[in-house]
Amino acid sequence: MSPQTPAPQTDPPRWAGAFADRTRRMVPSETRALFSMASRPDVVSLAGGMPSPEALPVKVMGTVLGEVLERYGADALQYGSAQGEAGLRERICQVMAAEGIAATPDEVMVTVGSQQALDLVTRIFVDPGDTVVAEAPTYVTALSTFAAHQARVVQVPVDHDGVVPQALEETFALLAAEGRPAKFFYTVPTFHNPTGVVLSAARRPEVLEICRRAGVLVLEDNPYGLLHFGDRPERALRADDPDGVVYLGSFSKTLAPGLRVGWVLAPRGIMDKLVLAAESAMLSHSLLAQRAVDHYLSTQSWQSHLTAARDTYRERRDAMLHELTALMPHGVHWTVPQGGFFVWMTLPSGMDSKALLPRAVAGGVAYVPGTGFSTAGGERHLRLSFSHPTPRRIREGVRNLAALLHAETEQVPLRARQLTPC
Amino acid sequence: MSPQTPAPQTDPPRWAGAFADRTRRMVPSETRALFSMASRPDVVSLAGGMPSPEALPVKVMGTVLGEVLERYGADALQYGSAQGEAGLRERICQVMAAEGIAATPDEVMVTVGSQQALDLVTRIFVDPGDTVVAEAPTYVTALSTFAAHQARVVQVPVDHDGVVPQALEETFALLAAEGRPAKFFYTVPTFHNPTGVVLSAARRPEVLEICRRAGVLVLEDNPYGLLHFGDRPERALRADDPDGVVYLGSFSKTLAPGLRVGWVLAPRGIMDKLVLAAESAMLSHSLLAQRAVDHYLSTQSWQSHLTAARDTYRERRDAMLHELTALMPHGVHWTVPQGGFFVWMTLPSGMDSKALLPRAVAGGVAYVPGTGFSTAGGERHLRLSFSHPTPRRIREGVRNLAALLHAETEQVPLRARQLTPC
Repeated sequence: MSPQTPAPQTDPPRWAGAFADRTRRMVPSETRALFSMASRPDVVSLAGGMPSPEALPVKVMGTVLGEVLERYGADALQYGSAQGEAGLRERICQVMAAEGIAATPDEVMVTVGSQQALDLVTRIFVDPGDTVVAEAPTYVTALSTFAAHQARVVQVPVDHDGVVPQALEETFALLAAEGRPAKFFYTVPTFHNPTGVVLSAARRPEVLEICRRAGVLVLEDNPYGLLHFGDRPERALRADDPDGVVYLGSFSKTLAPGLRVGWVLAPRGIMDKLVLAAESAMLSHSLLAQRAVDHYLSTQSWQSHLTAARDTYRERRDAMLHELTALMPHGVHWTVPQGGFFVWMTLPSGMDSKALLPRAVAGGVAYVPGTGFSTAGGERHLRLSFSHPTPRRIREGVRNLAALLHAETEQVPLRARQLTPC
Repeated sequence: MSPQTPAPQTDPPRWAGAFADRTRRMVPSETRALFSMASRPDVVSLAGGMPSPEALPVKVMGTVLGEVLERYGADALQYGSAQGEAGLRERICQVMAAEGIAATPDEVMVTVGSQQALDLVTRIFVDPGDTVVAEAPTYVTALSTFAAHQARVVQVPVDHDGVVPQALEETFALLAAEGRPAKFFYTVPTFHNPTGVVLSAARRPEVLEICRRAGVLVLEDNPYGLLHFGDRPERALRADDPDGVVYLGSFSKTLAPGLRVGWVLAPRGIMDKLVLAAESAMLSHSLLAQRAVDHYLSTQSWQSHLTAARDTYRERRDAMLHELTALMPHGVHWTVPQGGFFVWMTLPSGMDSKALLPRAVAGGVAYVPGTGFSTAGGERHLRLSFSHPTPRRIREGVRNLAALLHAETEQVPLRARQLTPC
């Protein structure tokens, strides 16, 4: 039994009666067990969304850390401020400028990955029972975070152009009518997790306008934006509504997750509260990690690193798409991502990706079942990640999956094979 | 205006109406402004509880980080598990053995300093309005954390032997009688923050027994335990009640705060929930920081480092106590810590340490007023930290404080000078 998968308790633990209400909602996510399976060498894991090991700048980071300790001495190992180092926050503003964002360092806070930012934003806005609107499907651990804060999550469908504006508008209207308006709309508009789709340029102003009219704050989560396979990045939602959007960013996908450096950009009135929430949650982020990222960005060629990372992920996506096209049975569909880490697959009607998973693992491939990305439904979907395995392993994984699905689809009556949008 | 001290809002910010109830309780702590004052070179800061820069192993950490990247490569920069690295958790068990604790790695989770552990424990136990019992005075940012979770905090006095058992027992009885029993008792039994006192050996079993009888979980926060000025460490409360105590530890004071590596040790039924709470709060701690601490502990002479750190802090305490004894006016009292970072001072009746602070700063010394450590009261007290400034600066700071207090006490009528216990 790995440390990631605690055994079920046979007796209720001694202190369970003292747990807070929210604690009863804390249950292991479906990806949790998969991370253990992913470590079996005979299984190709297309499950976890980890960056490619080849894209992690190990040698450069050694140089950077040495120089940071040389330059700052004990000031690299002390406590920092809750909002984070001013120099790094300045550089983060420069990073965001690539996506059209104009921001100042006092609107930025450095966080333990963007996950902590998501947690802190939820903490300052959500009382138990409050409503949060998210996409269907959405990022798994965002659902865990919302559950930990006892939010009611209402999901709005995503199609090949991102969240569906009309459905968003209707949802806001329904919530307003029942007197429980959304506290915020959580969205991953660019290279969406888990579908890989991009909110289209036409829909972006429409979505912002719908949120503005409904008085709903937008929470834009953008960890993949700079990993675009086309020529240029998408324009962030935040770029066109500085006061209506809280933006989450991360160096986990573009530099290294192991430093745990992410950030939140928020209007000043929100930022003041986020800083206080961060202080009570962890005092301050690692000064060493912050100075390392700052020093990396100012002394190393991050743009070349990003270009190489895009090439790596584009090659892997191509390997996956090529093999999917060549091998998948009729009735299986998937998205074609223009950036990021993920392909979203739709199985023929009547099939259940969660029920299939044990056979998939036995057949040498792991994925994340679609049910993990929604509070209900998702059985016909699954997420394939092309970020971590090599192209050779990706092809092997897709072959293993195709063999399974061929065997399975032969057992599904043809009449049941109806398609749904992503 | 420094980033630590946001300007007061003139208009209510646009989204303030959407804040959660808990957010209204988030207000800047009294230490916050002090960190900015502490950076003025003409002021000796005896305020913040930062480790001595001389005690931070800068050079060694450079070697350690280089070796970790060499040894683990990309595995030092990836995502880790929410519970933390097994190797480090094993070493943490060895560290805790010095204080009599027998524990296994599956009972340990690595956290972003012990502050995050405190936040997560509060998160899984405290519903809004629940009661938490703490010492009076207690650690400032623990009060912020409890407030962020909308806990009601009831404080029990500390004297020169630590928390007063009879007062603790009576408090539990009162809370039980009103039907709002405490969710846990938060205590810093060893080199207490802010008073510096130690819960006596005679009281330790008594306190455990009182909590056991009342059915109240003990939350033992022990960041200073290994920084003892005597021959050996105190025996942790957790050592004598593995199922009744959740223990918080930290490398921030014994190694370096800038790595943000702390931990929580908890019975399995609680640990399962803490891991889930950590996952939704930050996914995982920095793998680089964890591997660095693990590698440091296994390849460097931590015991020699600790011995040197104890010598450093003992010398600073001695400098502070010598100067206090030589210079303070009649009616001013203070504790004599046997470890840790802090001296707690009691002023003559009628004096107010918070009101005095601006004059103190003008006179070249900063401290933390006693009011920050309690939900009410504390005006006659203040905390002096001897951890960060050099002995020369400490003497200078105490001289500046003594000059102020001499001037002040001459204005306080003698009859008002009654003493209170610490």
